[in-house]
Amino acid sequence: MPAQNPEKAILIIGDGIGDRPISSLKGKTPLEAAKKPTLDTLAAKGATGLLHVLSPGIPPGSDTGHLSLFGYDARDCYTGRGPFEALGAGLDLEPTDIAFRGNFATVRLTKDENFEVIDRRAGRNLPEGAELAKLINGIKVPRFPKVKVIIGHTVEHRCVLVLRGKGLSSAVSDTDPHGHGDSVLASTPMDESPEAKKTADLVNTVTREFHRLLKDSPINAKRKKAGLPEANIVLLRGAGVLPVIPSLKDIYGISTACVAGGALYKGVARSVGMEVLDVPGATASYDTDVEAKAKATAKALKTHDYVFLHFKPTDSASHDKDPMKKIAMVEKFDHLVKTLIGLIDMDHTHIAITGDHTTASTNGKHTGDPVPLLLVGPTIRSDDVSEFSERACAEGGLGHILGMAVMPMLMSALDRSPMFGA
Amino acid sequence: MPAQNPEKAILIIGDGIGDRPISSLKGKTPLEAAKKPTLDTLAAKGATGLLHVLSPGIPPGSDTGHLSLFGYDARDCYTGRGPFEALGAGLDLEPTDIAFRGNFATVRLTKDENFEVIDRRAGRNLPEGAELAKLINGIKVPRFPKVKVIIGHTVEHRCVLVLRGKGLSSAVSDTDPHGHGDSVLASTPMDESPEAKKTADLVNTVTREFHRLLKDSPINAKRKKAGLPEANIVLLRGAGVLPVIPSLKDIYGISTACVAGGALYKGVARSVGMEVLDVPGATASYDTDVEAKAKATAKALKTHDYVFLHFKPTDSASHDKDPMKKIAMVEKFDHLVKTLIGLIDMDHTHIAITGDHTTASTNGKHTGDPVPLLLVGPTIRSDDVSEFSERACAEGGLGHILGMAVMPMLMSALDRSPMFGA
Repeated sequence: MPAQNPEKAILIIGDGIGDRPISSLKGKTPLEAAKKPTLDTLAAKGATGLLHVLSPGIPPGSDTGHLSLFGYDARDCYTGRGPFEALGAGLDLEPTDIAFRGNFATVRLTKDENFEVIDRRAGRNLPEGAELAKLINGIKVPRFPKVKVIIGHTVEHRCVLVLRGKGLSSAVSDTDPHGHGDSVLASTPMDESPEAKKTADLVNTVTREFHRLLKDSPINAKRKKAGLPEANIVLLRGAGVLPVIPSLKDIYGISTACVAGGALYKGVARSVGMEVLDVPGATASYDTDVEAKAKATAKALKTHDYVFLHFKPTDSASHDKDPMKKIAMVEKFDHLVKTLIGLIDMDHTHIAITGDHTTASTNGKHTGDPVPLLLVGPTIRSDDVSEFSERACAEGGLGHILGMAVMPMLMSALDRSPMFGA
Repeated sequence: MPAQNPEKAILIIGDGIGDRPISSLKGKTPLEAAKKPTLDTLAAKGATGLLHVLSPGIPPGSDTGHLSLFGYDARDCYTGRGPFEALGAGLDLEPTDIAFRGNFATVRLTKDENFEVIDRRAGRNLPEGAELAKLINGIKVPRFPKVKVIIGHTVEHRCVLVLRGKGLSSAVSDTDPHGHGDSVLASTPMDESPEAKKTADLVNTVTREFHRLLKDSPINAKRKKAGLPEANIVLLRGAGVLPVIPSLKDIYGISTACVAGGALYKGVARSVGMEVLDVPGATASYDTDVEAKAKATAKALKTHDYVFLHFKPTDSASHDKDPMKKIAMVEKFDHLVKTLIGLIDMDHTHIAITGDHTTASTNGKHTGDPVPLLLVGPTIRSDDVSEFSERACAEGGLGHILGMAVMPMLMSALDRSPMFGA
């Protein structure tokens, strides 16, 4: 491990910040149309480029996108979203645990014994989420007496399920049909192994047990009475095991921290060994408190070598197909960055600013288009680009690179990237 | 699989369209020297870049080049040219078939019992090709009674050989010496396996049988009488098995079609699941009917999500070391593109235009120089480049990327590229 080094690094992610040309913006992207004086000033000061977060044309998920930006090859180590959600919910995982992202949802039992989905989110606003999770946490599953069932609640309708036991596999399909009016799917094995077959059976059995316990709960009786959708099942998706990867401390000898609102981002951060800070006001929603996040980041930088700062609302605006909202959220992001750099010693800090993927506000989806990248700090060779946008950064001095490269580049700027060779 | 999507895509390949600086053109390439108003207009409208079809400095074959442009890693799945030629000739292949490209050729038996090649193409013009193929199709091979011998004829001197049987291998060398005055080579095993040893023996036996049957055929007696070179052997090269790869439909859920003249291109298209359309006038020669090809492409786009349109003459002019002819063929290519875009709805179509490799008209060979790439369509972030040429596109907003990336980028533009992660 290198000696203590006063140089620090910050990775700032504007989630889904890249976009496509929008006709109502005269062909500009929201990032191009927004007023973002701080980002543009930093672009002028530093070097820019374009980032293919996974590889050209491949839309990244939020989990694989962040794994790549932390320097890992997602194609090697990723099995599913579940474990990151579980870590983000504060659960601890054992290496053989199978973790799922879950939704408390509303279903009705049809005549032919299917669960028809009425509301995938049980009304979304679910203040009883933690209580409902407690109700089904730790249940014994018929025919699987040795399996431990762990349920954790995060926010609103969102929860995670961890199945702990011997001989389980993450190669099982989702029960979440992802649409309203569809039936809850039977989980099926995705390979030929007996472990996958067993786990799919377990998942289907657990799902029926959850329904049995939830449908008659006093909480749901109360919700029914109040005219609210009952949270009477858990829809599961993204089965996975925790990636077997070295931590950022193992690789670079650095201490790392995470400032984020969303459970998934916290979870990916925990999976690579970051300390996840509790920042009141960091909500991952449009109202997220950027002053609080900037202050928390600056404070964390005093005690850590590297801080990951995540900003979600740019992505949410695109998912809502609202380019004007995205412009406003880019401007909020700019304000976040402005506040942060007012609080830190820029002479001893390297900052990377980029996105985890493009989210097109035309269709609300993650796309394979690259995202702009900006590196600024005392060791960075500046270029002629003075605008932080998709088109401007395409001409930048960093070139067009892969998401996996950002972390080693940032660590090299800090003289923390291990030499390969001698 | 995504829902039906009205957005369409066309991949237009100007074969061997890249070139090197030509001194007689004052250092310009033929593409730079040609008048190509349509290509330049599209470049101005869209985004450009440079494509390393395989990887920098590696000259692609026509087969591996197209496999890459269809999104496949040729290094993983390619064994030889034969199977693509066979598919292009309309033969169907079983997974264990060993397929070869063949030339009807003229040889004489030397005193030391070697076959000396007099004409590698038996005069090239060989109207009796199909008849000759019939003569040797399905023959029984001494010592290999269970092996099925299938011969298919394409055009002129060109044919394909398929060996069908148990325990065969594609790891065998060519019998085609690729030069005049050389001896026909003995095929040799290229690995230590008994299968390769057996197949080399089989190939040499088949070659002698072909000669025995062809040399005394009435067709050759007639040709001899007319002063034409006898087609008295089949020179074999490019042994391979069909790559085990998912189809484009499997990967992207799209329906695909191919408009091409040459058997090889049709064959690679078939290997990835494209419907190969019969387009009268599409000859793959200088006289190929570009109006017919444009019309066929526009028509195919009505019933398919993706059409691959291939234009051969740019490559042929380079192989003929004729830069002035190449300029004329680039201009013909421009006319093809002009005609096509007049027939389609550009508001709902994404077009990629590039080459499968550089063919240098200085030396007539495929080289490792990158080729220009142009992407145009409603979701594409335009750049400042307004010329479709090697040098201009080097500065384009798509950067310098690998051939394998074109397909996912095109599919991402259509929201058909599967997300990796969640």
